Amino acid sequence: MKLLEERIRTDGKIREGGVLKVDSFLNHQMDIRLFLEMGKEFLRLYGDCGVTKILTIEASGIGIACVAAQFFDCPVIFAKKSKSRNIDGDVYTSKVESFTHGKVYDIIVSKEFLRPEDRVLIIDDFLANGSALQGLIKLVQDAGATLVGAGIAVEKAFQPGGDLIRGMGVRVESLARIKDMSVEHGVEFCD
Amino acid sequence: MKLLEERIRTDGKIREGGVLKVDSFLNHQMDIRLFLEMGKEFLRLYGDCGVTKILTIEASGIGIACVAAQFFDCPVIFAKKSKSRNIDGDVYTSKVESFTHGKVYDIIVSKEFLRPEDRVLIIDDFLANGSALQGLIKLVQDAGATLVGAGIAVEKAFQPGGDLIRGMGVRVESLARIKDMSVEHGVEFCD
Repeated sequence: MKLLEERIRTDGKIREGGVLKVDSFLNHQMDIRLFLEMGKEFLRLYGDCGVTKILTIEASGIGIACVAAQFFDCPVIFAKKSKSRNIDGDVYTSKVESFTHGKVYDIIVSKEFLRPEDRVLIIDDFLANGSALQGLIKLVQDAGATLVGAGIAVEKAFQPGGDLIRGMGVRVESLARIKDMSVEHGVEFCD
Repeated sequence: MKLLEERIRTDGKIREGGVLKVDSFLNHQMDIRLFLEMGKEFLRLYGDCGVTKILTIEASGIGIACVAAQFFDCPVIFAKKSKSRNIDGDVYTSKVESFTHGKVYDIIVSKEFLRPEDRVLIIDDFLANGSALQGLIKLVQDAGATLVGAGIAVEKAFQPGGDLIRGMGVRVESLARIKDMSVEHGVEFCD
């Protein structure tokens, strides 16, 4: 998606160690005009898949997922990163390793909201090592729901997550796929 | 807002200890059709205030804020609950006490995204003791920005937060104000 690629080129900041900061428009400050265009693009890609529910993970996936959901006219569920007192009853759970924060955490969703009859589109802001996406996929599988695919804003295609998850037979559509990036040469996108 | 009140009556679940579970439509599974109507109501209330930025707090405020922001045609910033490696540079910070989770945590926003010229609308899902809202107000004040007011989905008017913050001279508009609630008698709304 050219609009997102251009925005990454203009406003993304590359840091040492493969870190891409997009916090001026994607995951701290959020450009809702851009999110609307991203939502329409997800609809173009997945609009004929009978999506009944969008699944994302707190925190930075939520905004993208909620803005996109209006085009699919379906609810969003977000996986929570730790058990809160306000979730009771049975939950599906899986483990996610965060490379950004350097720790492993549990993610959960209430069984009540992920049903065998659901057709689930996963939406998230980043795909790098694929740990969060694998965790979300496991929640869908545990629920016996149908996984339609994953819609990702930014994929770091030089990291293993995308290949790993496509290799599992899951459809993954990323709006911007970064082939390579460096402080010296900037961002190069996949064709 | 009648639509939200009716939804709380129908799908909200009251638990002992003043806990209202609205996780089937507001803060775990999110009903985007409802969020669109809530966003329009926030626009009706604050549409003439020259809002340039909506500020919320992770995680459950983000969806409501992002869906509302399209009507204001402005970006959203969400305050983060702990310092992540991906935020660098200067941040504004304040402390929030979570009664749900029983702990005190820091919230932060990058100074870059909250500017003295901003006119800020705070949006959040719940107002009870007011700790999160006070923390967000402090971030706006520290930035020297103008606080337009707060738009809250559900206010527990029998808890002190609303009075406290209105007493500070801050405009607070809550779409559903709960006067009282109990497992036996259900939810009673303010007039």
